[in-house]
Amino acid sequence: MAEASATGACGEAMAAVAAAEGSSGPAGLTVGRSFSNYRPFEPQEAGMPTGAGSSPTFPALGIGMDSCVIPLRHGGLSLVQTTDFFYPLVEDPYMMGRIACANVLSDLYAMGITECDNMLMLLSVSQSMSEEEREKVTPLMVKGFRDAAEEGGTAVTGGQTVVNPWIIIGGVATVVCQPNEFIMPDSAVVGDVLVLTKPLGTQVAVNAHQWLDNPERWNKVKMVVSREEVELAYQEAMFNMATLNRTAAGLMHTFNAHAATDITGFGILGHSQNLAKQQRNEVSFVIHNLPIIAKMAAVSKASGRFGLLQGTSAETSGGLLICLPREQAARFCSEIKSSKYGEGHQAWIVGIVEKGNRTARIIDKPRVIEVLPRGATAAALAHDSSNASSEPSS
Amino acid sequence: MAEASATGACGEAMAAVAAAEGSSGPAGLTVGRSFSNYRPFEPQEAGMPTGAGSSPTFPALGIGMDSCVIPLRHGGLSLVQTTDFFYPLVEDPYMMGRIACANVLSDLYAMGITECDNMLMLLSVSQSMSEEEREKVTPLMVKGFRDAAEEGGTAVTGGQTVVNPWIIIGGVATVVCQPNEFIMPDSAVVGDVLVLTKPLGTQVAVNAHQWLDNPERWNKVKMVVSREEVELAYQEAMFNMATLNRTAAGLMHTFNAHAATDITGFGILGHSQNLAKQQRNEVSFVIHNLPIIAKMAAVSKASGRFGLLQGTSAETSGGLLICLPREQAARFCSEIKSSKYGEGHQAWIVGIVEKGNRTARIIDKPRVIEVLPRGATAAALAHDSSNASSEPSS
Repeated sequence: MAEASATGACGEAMAAVAAAEGSSGPAGLTVGRSFSNYRPFEPQEAGMPTGAGSSPTFPALGIGMDSCVIPLRHGGLSLVQTTDFFYPLVEDPYMMGRIACANVLSDLYAMGITECDNMLMLLSVSQSMSEEEREKVTPLMVKGFRDAAEEGGTAVTGGQTVVNPWIIIGGVATVVCQPNEFIMPDSAVVGDVLVLTKPLGTQVAVNAHQWLDNPERWNKVKMVVSREEVELAYQEAMFNMATLNRTAAGLMHTFNAHAATDITGFGILGHSQNLAKQQRNEVSFVIHNLPIIAKMAAVSKASGRFGLLQGTSAETSGGLLICLPREQAARFCSEIKSSKYGEGHQAWIVGIVEKGNRTARIIDKPRVIEVLPRGATAAALAHDSSNASSEPSS
Repeated sequence: MAEASATGACGEAMAAVAAAEGSSGPAGLTVGRSFSNYRPFEPQEAGMPTGAGSSPTFPALGIGMDSCVIPLRHGGLSLVQTTDFFYPLVEDPYMMGRIACANVLSDLYAMGITECDNMLMLLSVSQSMSEEEREKVTPLMVKGFRDAAEEGGTAVTGGQTVVNPWIIIGGVATVVCQPNEFIMPDSAVVGDVLVLTKPLGTQVAVNAHQWLDNPERWNKVKMVVSREEVELAYQEAMFNMATLNRTAAGLMHTFNAHAATDITGFGILGHSQNLAKQQRNEVSFVIHNLPIIAKMAAVSKASGRFGLLQGTSAETSGGLLICLPREQAARFCSEIKSSKYGEGHQAWIVGIVEKGNRTARIIDKPRVIEVLPRGATAAALAHDSSNASSEPSS
């Protein structure tokens, strides 16, 4: 777009920082070792923004967009790039690598960009790991990261590794684009519909999973959720976080998206507000529906944390929130489920664009769409019968 | 160059990790606070490579070059980028920011690139800092980083901030180039001369400065150096680390450089060896002269650490090591001192390129060129009279 200018916040509040808490945690559910000892011990506040709305302590490095867009000296091309790094939040090093890469690429995908010319990896190994642990965990993390990069059509060509108290994993995604390859997130119009491409609740699921081994915490939520349900929700969250938003980015072009962002550390409300602020037209976003990994709404409520129903619960590598013309939205949701894009893509209509002063809100009693984990059987979630649904509302 | 391909190690062993040791250190020599509590407490091994020669624990992310060079889909253009991040190693937050930025840009400069299209900043604040400390230190670090970026003709448009036990500062430098804008580091020929553009000894100076408050360590070196000399050496090291290699990068074109690298975590010998490996011709590098910040050779020897005279002492944001045609080298060294490039640039002929099998070595008794700190008076270094010189050897 013509307005592309050298602005934009690359990288954002990391859900992982917020999500990684507890730590006496499970002793390695998967191959390799538990990350529990090599990440933050204390719960940390969601939202360490580098972008819009950052506090004086965390200086703003840009404004509002998911990726930087830098006009180049070379005929009409733009440099688009983004960086993110964070701490492990799942126990599986390979999946952690995938999630980190998916999370970095997601900032390009939120601009409707489907290609990535280069990926750098940012890595630290924990000083408190033994040599043996490092040699087990690090290659798996790197492989997961590389595999996800390959799935994104790019390759890791470099990076930086340091020793640190905590494990760090992240990257830098860069692409040089022609103007028609990206969609500036500023053209929502009244009557548009908001679509979300992954269910919410990753932070809740990751934390609930850690609470399985923390009786004090578990006691607070065990009335509303079973251990098996938490296990399923955790697996579902991990799967979703590791899924690339690349298909959604491609469909943004097919269905004439007007703007998009990805849902990460600020939660769906925070990112909706950021996106609303970017708009050229006098619009506001109203969210009616919250697709949430099954049972995580109840866990959020029972725990008294997160604010999932208020839209403030951080997500890691969340879905794209896309403004689409009303007549295109249902087609988008239907198309993304097509088997030609592989397994596991879903999308829900979650809200509308109305006239307003560039803000966003969630209605008083949003409809919670309980998204069944793929691993779930009907029996596993039998005692939840109220409003379960894995279908998009419309 | 035509061979530009999607290879290259971006980022490298960080001298800072190696350099930051001790910690009961000085309580803030400068504005803001001492970083002493917010960086690694233990000395760590030099060389956390992400590039050539990395151990299984630190997986190789590329091969050998200072920056990635990625051919783009757009007519003849290449994407060149690099990333580096590390921990504070000087007590002045503003200078630390400048050093971090100079260090990132240096990987572009080593390719003869003088422009940078975009800079991202990577930052962590320490979880053990008070809010007040953060608000003092962080903006200064950011300002230093930004100011150096501006001096490099670029701007910081984004980044990522997290909370971590230690402070992290670093960045990602990216440029899209035409083939004539960069010099692939592979064309040294027999008869070339090696030029170095900053004195060695930054790691030694930074550590010696910390030892001023560590009697056990200080006792080992106090026979060969005075407190004032350490203070001067530290200031000189800080100044040099914060100096951009941009002028040198520009002069690489003027004087037909055949190859170059920058000296960081592997020391001058390690980086010479890496550079030698890249060469298309059957050449080897022989280093005869070691320009070293005054007294730091003696400190290195007395301390029994570092291996400065063996060329293995890590540097942070060190100079460029450039292969130049013999007849151009002296002109390069003379030109870079010209006042039109501002204060403080120097260069020394340090070695030659001879026929060989792509290795590098330092001769048995290299000539140590004692480089006088700018702040030094004759008196301050009076009891060192042997081979002091601030002039390039030739």
